Amino acid sequence: MAGNSFGQLFRLTTFGESHGRALGGVIDGCPAGIPLDEEMIQNELDRRKPGQSAIVTQRKEPDTVEIYSGVFEGKTTGTPIGFAIHNTNQKSHDYSHIKDSYRPSHADYVYDQKYGFRDYRGGGRSSARETASRVVAGAIAKQFLSEIKINAFVSQVGELKMETPYQKLDFANIESNPVRCPDTEMAQKMEEYIKAIKKEGDTIGGVITCVIQNVPIGLGEPVFDKLHARLGEAMLSINAVKGFEYGSGFDGVAMKGSEHNDAYNTDGTTKTNRSGGIQGGISNGMDIYFNVAFKPVATVLQAYDTINKEGEKVSTQGKGRHDPCVVPRAVPIVEAMAALVLADYALLARTNKI
Amino acid sequence: MAGNSFGQLFRLTTFGESHGRALGGVIDGCPAGIPLDEEMIQNELDRRKPGQSAIVTQRKEPDTVEIYSGVFEGKTTGTPIGFAIHNTNQKSHDYSHIKDSYRPSHADYVYDQKYGFRDYRGGGRSSARETASRVVAGAIAKQFLSEIKINAFVSQVGELKMETPYQKLDFANIESNPVRCPDTEMAQKMEEYIKAIKKEGDTIGGVITCVIQNVPIGLGEPVFDKLHARLGEAMLSINAVKGFEYGSGFDGVAMKGSEHNDAYNTDGTTKTNRSGGIQGGISNGMDIYFNVAFKPVATVLQAYDTINKEGEKVSTQGKGRHDPCVVPRAVPIVEAMAALVLADYALLARTNKI
Amino acid sequence: MAGNSFGQLFRLTTFGESHGRALGGVIDGCPAGIPLDEEMIQNELDRRKPGQSAIVTQRKEPDTVEIYSGVFEGKTTGTPIGFAIHNTNQKSHDYSHIKDSYRPSHADYVYDQKYGFRDYRGGGRSSARETASRVVAGAIAKQFLSEIKINAFVSQVGELKMETPYQKLDFANIESNPVRCPDTEMAQKMEEYIKAIKKEGDTIGGVITCVIQNVPIGLGEPVFDKLHARLGEAMLSINAVKGFEYGSGFDGVAMKGSEHNDAYNTDGTTKTNRSGGIQGGISNGMDIYFNVAFKPVATVLQAYDTINKEGEKVSTQGKGRHDPCVVPRAVPIVEAMAALVLADYALLARTNKI
Amino acid sequence: MAGNSFGQLFRLTTFGESHGRALGGVIDGCPAGIPLDEEMIQNELDRRKPGQSAIVTQRKEPDTVEIYSGVFEGKTTGTPIGFAIHNTNQKSHDYSHIKDSYRPSHADYVYDQKYGFRDYRGGGRSSARETASRVVAGAIAKQFLSEIKINAFVSQVGELKMETPYQKLDFANIESNPVRCPDTEMAQKMEEYIKAIKKEGDTIGGVITCVIQNVPIGLGEPVFDKLHARLGEAMLSINAVKGFEYGSGFDGVAMKGSEHNDAYNTDGTTKTNRSGGIQGGISNGMDIYFNVAFKPVATVLQAYDTINKEGEKVSTQGKGRHDPCVVPRAVPIVEAMAALVLADYALLARTNKI
Repeated sequence: MAGNSFGQLFRLTTFGESHGRALGGVIDGCPAGIPLDEEMIQNELDRRKPGQSAIVTQRKEPDTVEIYSGVFEGKTTGTPIGFAIHNTNQKSHDYSHIKDSYRPSHADYVYDQKYGFRDYRGGGRSSARETASRVVAGAIAKQFLSEIKINAFVSQVGELKMETPYQKLDFANIESNPVRCPDTEMAQKMEEYIKAIKKEGDTIGGVITCVIQNVPIGLGEPVFDKLHARLGEAMLSINAVKGFEYGSGFDGVAMKGSEHNDAYNTDGTTKTNRSGGIQGGISNGMDIYFNVAFKPVATVLQAYDTINKEGEKVSTQGKGRHDPCVVPRAVPIVEAMAALVLADYALLARTNKI
Repeated sequence: MAGNSFGQLFRLTTFGESHGRALGGVIDGCPAGIPLDEEMIQNELDRRKPGQSAIVTQRKEPDTVEIYSGVFEGKTTGTPIGFAIHNTNQKSHDYSHIKDSYRPSHADYVYDQKYGFRDYRGGGRSSARETASRVVAGAIAKQFLSEIKINAFVSQVGELKMETPYQKLDFANIESNPVRCPDTEMAQKMEEYIKAIKKEGDTIGGVITCVIQNVPIGLGEPVFDKLHARLGEAMLSINAVKGFEYGSGFDGVAMKGSEHNDAYNTDGTTKTNRSGGIQGGISNGMDIYFNVAFKPVATVLQAYDTINKEGEKVSTQGKGRHDPCVVPRAVPIVEAMAALVLADYALLARTNKI
Repeated sequence: MAGNSFGQLFRLTTFGESHGRALGGVIDGCPAGIPLDEEMIQNELDRRKPGQSAIVTQRKEPDTVEIYSGVFEGKTTGTPIGFAIHNTNQKSHDYSHIKDSYRPSHADYVYDQKYGFRDYRGGGRSSARETASRVVAGAIAKQFLSEIKINAFVSQVGELKMETPYQKLDFANIESNPVRCPDTEMAQKMEEYIKAIKKEGDTIGGVITCVIQNVPIGLGEPVFDKLHARLGEAMLSINAVKGFEYGSGFDGVAMKGSEHNDAYNTDGTTKTNRSGGIQGGISNGMDIYFNVAFKPVATVLQAYDTINKEGEKVSTQGKGRHDPCVVPRAVPIVEAMAALVLADYALLARTNKI
Repeated sequence: MAGNSFGQLFRLTTFGESHGRALGGVIDGCPAGIPLDEEMIQNELDRRKPGQSAIVTQRKEPDTVEIYSGVFEGKTTGTPIGFAIHNTNQKSHDYSHIKDSYRPSHADYVYDQKYGFRDYRGGGRSSARETASRVVAGAIAKQFLSEIKINAFVSQVGELKMETPYQKLDFANIESNPVRCPDTEMAQKMEEYIKAIKKEGDTIGGVITCVIQNVPIGLGEPVFDKLHARLGEAMLSINAVKGFEYGSGFDGVAMKGSEHNDAYNTDGTTKTNRSGGIQGGISNGMDIYFNVAFKPVATVLQAYDTINKEGEKVSTQGKGRHDPCVVPRAVPIVEAMAALVLADYALLARTNKI
């Protein structure tokens, strides 16, 4: 209710601040009997962790997940899966530049206004560190949905935009480069560009594309809880996201109905897929694909002016180890949120008919 | 749960099929003591109804709302507001071309797959006629939120895109033309273009921009239920929507952090507003603005090939009275959904602090 | 949220005041494909309606249900079922004795305190007339759960308590007498007693026992949402209910573990059933049985003192046509609420395992 | 949804099995700004823990709570409060007598039926050990509700029933004896009785009474979510509970309306309080009081026959360290659940009026 749960039947609730004692969550509603590969969960978490490459933040956060419950003799039991990621090395930080002043385009100011005060250490609850819990839950959702293939990748950094349609890409290339762009030539350009931006002490935005294959027909609900509405909500709940489009998206606006419509093959598949695998909010068995727009990270390592709690102007300097571009590390988060949406609807779809 | 409710504290549940006996809904959680202007509700409904102008569907649906409960002596009582819109003139329709075959890019096929059969009359539950109930509820939410100003308008039709920033527009012009575009010159071009498209028996997409002003600081929840995530979900739940972006949106991707960040004035307002009035998922008091992309309506009045229930190829012809472009009539729907989101968060914000 | 919905997956939302335009509700989540007998729904409603016999209120309320949506060609479609019961003959009532003063042990006073004012006509939303909507929904739930047998009956009126164990009763006798007590001899005594109470202008309490047979194993959730916890909540939400017990209930308190435990037969059934068909919150396939305690109706047709809005003492006289004992008419309500709980859990049970 | 959350606005989600790595939970929706006394939380937990006295189980479980998030500089931050209680000494247990056979009146059999298998160590998720998490959350809810006084106590053990009305009791005596009965003479008798039962290797049931004082008017929702319905659900969700009654309860059944009704004083209080502080589901400011019936603990330290997974008859012997009577340790659990209900409704009541 207060916004820290996601999903109805396969429901994740998360807790934890950036620099508190631990982050973690509870998954309620995970069906019994899933053989759980805990190493795979840790691997997914490692895809998100800081310090993986030269183009992401150089912070050291080992991010080791401990599973507390809901698993017995290697299988899920149907009872809630509680887990935690303990924070380490949180001791000697210096937050004086954040404590009393408001970083532009961060949540500092609105937290103080909403709650009366805030945990200012490293962004507190509004830190993207919270998404580590989502990646854990998403990894479990993926294991439940083992038939469905979810692949996200970076398709744009700044103005560098990959134009190849996803059908021509080899998803095996995604993890072959630090940008997580499956077009290795473009990946090279993006990597260099991010390094240049980093050298300036600046940051840049990007786009992640996600493709979901082998989806059963019938996931999603007709009216408010359309499958793409929930996917959109899921993506927009990720830090720094400014936009979501699926299928033909914003480009579909300029098309005529006669060219936009997807004609049927006799087996119920469609010849084109401008619908993006969803019709009337319900999966039709074709590939689901969507784009997620991320703004540039707000923390720049440059001097800037802002205000303090008393509303006085202050001059300050961004510092710390931050991501120059958030999209490479956000790829597993996009996949995790997609998996959570699908797991929820896969369970709900069992209740449609007598 | 099954997807026909929206909101947690100010919650709308809708029912009704396109050609059933009645559509309607229940609003639960509307606070007591709101003086309710029922004429204003009917006016909002009239903005959505068919037959308003030459560029929308020429169907005759009077759409008169009856309020059954929750209002006493002109004020809301705090108890649920039940309402219905009775369907009229539903008798002599001919659905033979829809009954057994699947219209491309409609929900016909997935409904049959999901539920085993479907109410094929006029799209059944997947018809945009369902949104009439949302407009009723949104009109009540607007009256609850009387301080907040919500203005939606058409900013693009096909490739005709209004470039004027919203700050320079006169929202009073929105209702002055059938397109609902506040730039009257552009509105003229859009109207002519829609008429031309209609003559071809074809349809075209469009974009609606929504601007929300005078929003209190502190609406929205930090993690999954970010204000823009819920707005996005709300918009994506409207029929034919393919994309949502707020603030800098997809264009923000190509910006650097140093140019994207919104510097503070000493009163807590910001000099620019690329954040779109929301930081960390919480309203910051600046204007909220977002774009919603609508695909072209799938029903074209042309001959086309498709398949029937048995998976056989059939040739058919689109017929009936349909919208050549959905955005003019969707303007009040976008506003209604925005109002429902804000009403929900306005109530929730009362619970943040001791 | 505001308390007018019940159930998660098979969810009923109701609306309507005692003397408003209409009462009704929406059922969301009812699976597609249930052949729906509308006459059976009306029959259930008739079991609840006023004026059935000499021992219930003599008000005339025809209570005809109109189903607006969610049913097509005689079967549920999986979309929400909206329905209404229009109020008739509400015109010429005299509420002057209720409008400004507070009836003892009614909700008048707390409504004014909570909402600032109230719809004083016939109790408004707090009237038991709201339960008509529950009976409609329960009748639909019963049709979904056609294998499960739910029988409620009156087992106590005042101090007249039926001692026969339910296994020795013939449920076919329940509808044979106006009290709805299957022990026809006891029913006779109860009927006479209620008539005597009525003559005094007074009222009396009672107990309804409910027996649910042929329940599949596995309904109910282990921790907060135990099957009996939800049944208890359901029953306690009915007007005038003061207590709930299941299985051995309050009498079980005085037993030792060695005598209370239900030993197993080799087929998994139990030799005794003090558990009441539920172990650890989950149905075990044995009969579920429980008792529901109803207080005497607060409206007595006698002179009494009370206070008005200004906190002044006033003397008044109860009038109108009211039930001297609520249990005979509450039997179908208890069954309806039990059916709603079971329908919800029957759907949820589909999600337990991979 | 799967039943491991309680509350809507002040929402607790718990996880953990009896002999897993850790138990714990997340509280979402706790308002910001509550000064949090962590020692008081641990004290509440200590009231529930095993080994406190000679009449409870002699297991050694230190039950130390670690709070992971949601608290900063001694105050709640409005973000979720995650916590865990690590299990210790879980290593060398012998579960062979439980693993393959079903203990009578336990959840073993239904778990296997529902989920396909179960964590058999010490009852797994169905162990009352789960309630430790509720006590932690309840202690936080109590601190939020600091004005409201919640006192639970043992009022009956077996047939030993305290008859003194609660108004004449000194609640300060509750913690003065191991039974937690405020009538010290009766407490003595109960203690001796429990010791005798224990010597037999048997168990006995009991009743806990709870009195809630200083409740603001207006908590509770009119229809399904009546305050007493939610309290009943909360209590019935506690392990071993078989019944709930509030106000006049089951005894009210035999009263006439004219004697049951609570007449008003001119200040809105009532002369009597058979309503139990709740009218129409809404608190009226008078004391709320209710009784909760607990069955005898199912684990008896005696020889018994049962069946195994294969449906074969087996003879076995109860062993381990178990409570001969559950009510003394359940007192803080009843209080915790009451506090959670009230905290939820206290927040919801802020949304009733404009």
